[in-house]
Amino acid sequence: MKNFVFQNPTKLVFGRGQIARLGKLLPAGARIMVTFGGGSVKRNGVYDQVKAALAGFEHTEFWGIEPNPAVETLRKAVAQGKEFGADFLLAVGGGSVIDGTKLISAAMCYEGDAWELVQKGYYGTTVPIGTVLTLPATGSEMNSGAVISRYETHEKLPFYSHHPRFSILDPEATFTLPRRQIACGIADTFVHVVEQYMTSAGQSRVMDRWAEGILQTLIEIAPKVLTDSTDYDTMADFMLSATMGLNGFIAMGVNEDWATHMIGHELTALHSLTHGATLAIVYNGTLRVLREQKRSKILQYGERVWGICEGDEESRIDAAIARTEEFFSSLGLSTRLSQENIGEESIAEIERRFNACDAHYGECGNVDGAMARKILEACK
Amino acid sequence: MKNFVFQNPTKLVFGRGQIARLGKLLPAGARIMVTFGGGSVKRNGVYDQVKAALAGFEHTEFWGIEPNPAVETLRKAVAQGKEFGADFLLAVGGGSVIDGTKLISAAMCYEGDAWELVQKGYYGTTVPIGTVLTLPATGSEMNSGAVISRYETHEKLPFYSHHPRFSILDPEATFTLPRRQIACGIADTFVHVVEQYMTSAGQSRVMDRWAEGILQTLIEIAPKVLTDSTDYDTMADFMLSATMGLNGFIAMGVNEDWATHMIGHELTALHSLTHGATLAIVYNGTLRVLREQKRSKILQYGERVWGICEGDEESRIDAAIARTEEFFSSLGLSTRLSQENIGEESIAEIERRFNACDAHYGECGNVDGAMARKILEACK
Repeated sequence: MKNFVFQNPTKLVFGRGQIARLGKLLPAGARIMVTFGGGSVKRNGVYDQVKAALAGFEHTEFWGIEPNPAVETLRKAVAQGKEFGADFLLAVGGGSVIDGTKLISAAMCYEGDAWELVQKGYYGTTVPIGTVLTLPATGSEMNSGAVISRYETHEKLPFYSHHPRFSILDPEATFTLPRRQIACGIADTFVHVVEQYMTSAGQSRVMDRWAEGILQTLIEIAPKVLTDSTDYDTMADFMLSATMGLNGFIAMGVNEDWATHMIGHELTALHSLTHGATLAIVYNGTLRVLREQKRSKILQYGERVWGICEGDEESRIDAAIARTEEFFSSLGLSTRLSQENIGEESIAEIERRFNACDAHYGECGNVDGAMARKILEACK
Repeated sequence: MKNFVFQNPTKLVFGRGQIARLGKLLPAGARIMVTFGGGSVKRNGVYDQVKAALAGFEHTEFWGIEPNPAVETLRKAVAQGKEFGADFLLAVGGGSVIDGTKLISAAMCYEGDAWELVQKGYYGTTVPIGTVLTLPATGSEMNSGAVISRYETHEKLPFYSHHPRFSILDPEATFTLPRRQIACGIADTFVHVVEQYMTSAGQSRVMDRWAEGILQTLIEIAPKVLTDSTDYDTMADFMLSATMGLNGFIAMGVNEDWATHMIGHELTALHSLTHGATLAIVYNGTLRVLREQKRSKILQYGERVWGICEGDEESRIDAAIARTEEFFSSLGLSTRLSQENIGEESIAEIERRFNACDAHYGECGNVDGAMARKILEACK
């Protein structure tokens, strides 16, 4: 096991009717800017619950943080928050709203342009934030990370700051999610977990078990949440799995990879493809190309997650990769670039970008431009 | 899944050589009282590492917090801490030293006697504490609980306050632990996990998987840590499992039980038996007596943790209970009261105490004096 430091101070407030507790979670007398996405919260009842809970708090609303939040939009929020004198930000929405709000919270305390902070990659002076989550997927509600896009230049980069002070997770807020968003949320959570798991074997028995436990849960619940997104207990397991998938709880003392994510971000930047949907395509390529490097762990994954115990090693690895691709297909997601009409031009551009920033991603630092090309060609 | 609130702010600093980071974890200029147990830290090198890291900090040492920390001892520490003007407490030792230090930290801020706080059960005004853990078992290094004894009256009660600010876990500090302490630590961790798991089935898929993952890890590593406590990676897995077993991470949204612990505490109070050793005895009785109530979960546990898939339900439950008892035996621990010469007199006293405080412990609140007697008679 590697040495590590772990700390996650976010207060998780989970369950039915918990949005009503907002007033007690917010600092007394806070001036709040509430940030939203495109308006789904007005249809699922979350907006009304938030407004009721905010009675008595001075607050302003910022609307329009888009999927893959853009610095161009967030700059407007920074201006509004400063003008209002907000000393607390409340993000109400999915991972994009929360990610965007993390950059707003830092940029409100920074003199220069918000994109400079994204380029720095970290900024620790922030307005505190809380969240009301509506879409299980990114884990942003309980981690310090964000991914910010810049439409002018088709860039998408990670940014780190502080954890939310609190996050309210009411599974009932997910009941009205469109099937595709749920599918992408499952894929996103699945790949978050394997980015922290599918590395060299034998690093931590307990972390392996916990990662496998989330994967098993996702596989078990996927058919149910896709056919009935109003079953409370199943949506609760989905929501909890998504949060636990990227809050540091399964990353203690183990190597992480994240090459699939870095390639996926480029596909989103170039084609506006939803994050989870990019991962469902790229991950199969990653497994095929890095099959030797990840051999022991793919075998363990096949056995423990998919019950693949028969046959020689090569056929078990083949089966594990096939089952993974079938799982993403079963969610109704594409697993090949061609299904999304993405071809050589994008592969070349991603190779060029990786080379331009001298990329060395992945657990072994060997995912450079040439390797990214191989991975993308393996999922054409 | 039940509604829940989760927050665990402790910073975990894990790995080789991490005690040297103490100076950066402590508040600048802190006046520190360092609390110790009986002196094993002088033999395993931890004391020297702590002293080196504390160079430049004003500090005093309090020695002699015993296993099952006694309020009689802790009162002396409170007086010493107040006289020194300590504004930070550093607990260096196992769960008893950390538990005791939690009461010291509260009692230093309280005018009355420390035992009054234990009777209240919670006190939130405290001197902040950090820990250097030497014995994986109680999870106290990453939770807000403590168990305090009062020798004058043979009482042992739980007490709650704040989480440690930080805890340093260096697996090398466990290399010199006596085999029996390791065995009791494994039993303690195992029963912590089942107290949060062996309740009604179907509450949370992901919490079930995580609890089962810790149990599987303990079963896998037990033979190794008992024969060679100097294998770093195995001891690291043991240490991490013990912390994860009682830091709230596997308790989200699920019922808890703790009846076995409440009975075990009485055995310790009456017979000075090590905490983990009491659990290894009582838990078998709990499973036998509450077999019907816990039927579904025992079957799930048998299948997932022990691989028991053959036979009818009754024989699978029998096998799961038998494997559990065999596991504790394999640690070299007693699994029957008679092995520790504990008989009817103690059973009657525990029944009397449970009745005297109108006890209704366990997930269903049905473990009263009469049920405690049944459980104890089932592990005679």
